[in-house]
Amino acid sequence: MYEERIKRRDLLQKITSAEQAATLFKDQMVVASSGFTKAGDSKAVLKALASTAPAKPLRITLLTGASLGHDTDGALAEAGILHKRMPFQVDPALRKKINSGEVLFIDQHLGESASFVEEKIIPRVDIAVIEALLIEEEGSIVPTTSVGNSAAFAAAADKIIVEINLSVPLSIYGVHDIFSAGIWPDKQIIPITHAGARVGRQSILVDPEKIVAVVLTTTTDSPASINERDEKTTAIAGHLLEFFSHEIRKGRLPQSLRPLQSGIGKVANAVMEGFMDGNFHHLTMYSEVIQDSAFNLIDAGKLEVASASSITVSQACYNRVFSNFEKYKPHVILRPQDISNAAEVIRRLGVISINTAIECDIYGNVNSTHIGGTSMMNGIGGSNDFARNAYLSIFVTQSSSKAGGISHIVPMASHIDNTEHDVDIIVTENGLADLRGLAPRERARLIISKCAHASYKDELNNYFTNACSRGGHTPHLLQEALSWHGRFNENGTMLKTVRV
Amino acid sequence: MYEERIKRRDLLQKITSAEQAATLFKDQMVVASSGFTKAGDSKAVLKALASTAPAKPLRITLLTGASLGHDTDGALAEAGILHKRMPFQVDPALRKKINSGEVLFIDQHLGESASFVEEKIIPRVDIAVIEALLIEEEGSIVPTTSVGNSAAFAAAADKIIVEINLSVPLSIYGVHDIFSAGIWPDKQIIPITHAGARVGRQSILVDPEKIVAVVLTTTTDSPASINERDEKTTAIAGHLLEFFSHEIRKGRLPQSLRPLQSGIGKVANAVMEGFMDGNFHHLTMYSEVIQDSAFNLIDAGKLEVASASSITVSQACYNRVFSNFEKYKPHVILRPQDISNAAEVIRRLGVISINTAIECDIYGNVNSTHIGGTSMMNGIGGSNDFARNAYLSIFVTQSSSKAGGISHIVPMASHIDNTEHDVDIIVTENGLADLRGLAPRERARLIISKCAHASYKDELNNYFTNACSRGGHTPHLLQEALSWHGRFNENGTMLKTVRV
Repeated sequence: MYEERIKRRDLLQKITSAEQAATLFKDQMVVASSGFTKAGDSKAVLKALASTAPAKPLRITLLTGASLGHDTDGALAEAGILHKRMPFQVDPALRKKINSGEVLFIDQHLGESASFVEEKIIPRVDIAVIEALLIEEEGSIVPTTSVGNSAAFAAAADKIIVEINLSVPLSIYGVHDIFSAGIWPDKQIIPITHAGARVGRQSILVDPEKIVAVVLTTTTDSPASINERDEKTTAIAGHLLEFFSHEIRKGRLPQSLRPLQSGIGKVANAVMEGFMDGNFHHLTMYSEVIQDSAFNLIDAGKLEVASASSITVSQACYNRVFSNFEKYKPHVILRPQDISNAAEVIRRLGVISINTAIECDIYGNVNSTHIGGTSMMNGIGGSNDFARNAYLSIFVTQSSSKAGGISHIVPMASHIDNTEHDVDIIVTENGLADLRGLAPRERARLIISKCAHASYKDELNNYFTNACSRGGHTPHLLQEALSWHGRFNENGTMLKTVRV
Repeated sequence: MYEERIKRRDLLQKITSAEQAATLFKDQMVVASSGFTKAGDSKAVLKALASTAPAKPLRITLLTGASLGHDTDGALAEAGILHKRMPFQVDPALRKKINSGEVLFIDQHLGESASFVEEKIIPRVDIAVIEALLIEEEGSIVPTTSVGNSAAFAAAADKIIVEINLSVPLSIYGVHDIFSAGIWPDKQIIPITHAGARVGRQSILVDPEKIVAVVLTTTTDSPASINERDEKTTAIAGHLLEFFSHEIRKGRLPQSLRPLQSGIGKVANAVMEGFMDGNFHHLTMYSEVIQDSAFNLIDAGKLEVASASSITVSQACYNRVFSNFEKYKPHVILRPQDISNAAEVIRRLGVISINTAIECDIYGNVNSTHIGGTSMMNGIGGSNDFARNAYLSIFVTQSSSKAGGISHIVPMASHIDNTEHDVDIIVTENGLADLRGLAPRERARLIISKCAHASYKDELNNYFTNACSRGGHTPHLLQEALSWHGRFNENGTMLKTVRV
């Protein structure tokens, strides 16, 4: 069975166990792995490396597309193997080591992480581990459920370990569109002018001499956990859908909207699900990740094209989609993440981007990464690739959490990943603030009135009024600006007077 | 003499005085004007509007390319005419009214301001005032020393007032390259693949029916004030030139470097002047503004192409260049600012961007706009258009100022325009910190040791050490993070103990 997936016959002799492949890793190596939001990651070799590590102390730099599947980053972190990690992660165990300073994390724009390798800012890649559907006769690699940075990693690496995943159906062959703009000074135009454009190859060209091991696996991707809609996410989605309908009525958007990008998370998912009901047709997506909601919209005949760098879905959706992929293939395109997240394409297509904020301040700055200004959550991901270049840059967040103890609308964001210059719209369950064309003082009034939780509105208004009395284009009281976070750390609530 | 500049003969009857043209402006109008960093701005009509305003109370929204010439923004601000202003300014009188909240200022990425008009986020443009070299037979407008947003404004405006500037020599005809990617859903690729590429027209196509007045002027652009090199700017330039030489030796850059972008300011100018001495050849610029240093480099045979949106030079340089423009024309291209600052092109060309920071924090976040976190200085300009997309994003600042009372390296930036994700290199007169591939804790140690002023190093190290003891990916003490700015406001110095 596996023979049909290794069409270059001389590579059959490179088949080995994950444990054997793991012996190739040495101390201080730079290792690059496929994997983007859990999809198409290394299932066997990195885990084997983690389990053999205690016997062979080594520390590596690990580059990926985005997050790996359940426990891989955690296992590597707990084995003490990770010296440096980039560009993104979501693992609790790794996060702990990042925040203690034990693992050095470089939180990068996902659309720019390939260039770190291509431009040799990371001077070398020793080994790339790439999950593959199959290897073509000429030795090129067909990826599985994500493309991520695999093409850049395969080009840069000295050695390549291929994990052939036998559980991924051969019917996905053809879903990938591998295009590279090349490397300076010969960098080319990315000729994508609509979300469904196919401009590249179906596989990743590699020098087959670099393939030093082939490992067979059957482990499927870690499933996404889908949070059911709740009152808040439904309300946020409702505000956004109402806004889109308003823009259609005003003649500023067609019923097909513009190509949509939606981050991962329950709110983004709820918004996408909301398109099932609304009067929207012929939708397209130019995004990073294709989630359950996209397949539901394809089934409903609402979504024509979903272009992204990975398919990250629940187990039920995975089973439905991959048991019948021929049905979905005409609608789905998987691209390298420097193409799915390319500034050039996002601007040209006029993408509508929807991402989740950890907190927003009253002037429209967005914290996407740090809890309390210091502790890394996951990373900026592609949020600013899209927000910086989108036609409409939307951030969603709940107005408060922790039983009201945290206001997600704060006087000053404790860390800023998406600046006031790049945020068009903020939505909470309370309402939507359209900040386009507004000066900071106008934004503050609107954000407080539309988005803040009722129990924080007075305090936010007080802050703003007091700050205005001191003047400034962006009025602030620097000694109070971040005090809400300190109050939360001390009292467990940002509220000034703890309610009884 | 002026007749040869109005080749469409029926427009001769539209010639009128600036004062007469100023009567066309009504209350609440949206007015758009040519002008980018003082160059090619309205010399007559906006000033006439300012002087007639007291007799005719009105408030307008004013859009430009970037800053206007000396006193125009100031005169308009002091006449109380400005309700809203975007996307950039440098005028002291206007700045005061922005910071008091009297004028609403929208601080925008210069590369994105045209899209505000094209996408109708600003719903209409009533009148565009555009300085021109001449009007072609079919009615198209040839700009003067800048292109800025003039093409977008002319397309969007209901009415156009043309200021024919008779002092600008006809020899500049042909220097402009007017290209528009068009408007969604027909937005096209910007086909620029090298800094010197010419892809557009020599004039701005307009519907000549919209030209309601033609005003003749002879006022030249406000000259740039060139600050002489001093010890600090020379040291900063020296560090950067040494870095470039190092990168050449390492094989990461050729002797022609990559296309250069340099912001306005004495440090940027000193760096560019530094290329006169160094072992650099066949340089190119893909920038916003062409300044004195570029013409000096052209004269020295070092710079082959200077592409930007304006020519903003000292009086002496202006006289030299425009009395003999045929010599410079093969080397100079003026583009619309959405092309000079296009993410797409900046990435494709792999630009090296050099911009000035107001302050940098120890983790590499840059404040480009706000003094003490609240007061607007000029605006973000194109700094993030370039920094976000450049191959190398460099920020320069002096380590301290105000007799050592202000440290420009601070624990936390009091406003953030260019985030940690977009800043590769920070340079002060003390040294250069190459932040590429470094995690926040690594960056902090390097920035403090290389860039901070000696009198602040201990305090910065103390802050960092104490913050690390609390943990976090980006360690901070939120209650102290902004205290340096408060201390400066109270004591006139950020130093903890005022030295005797």
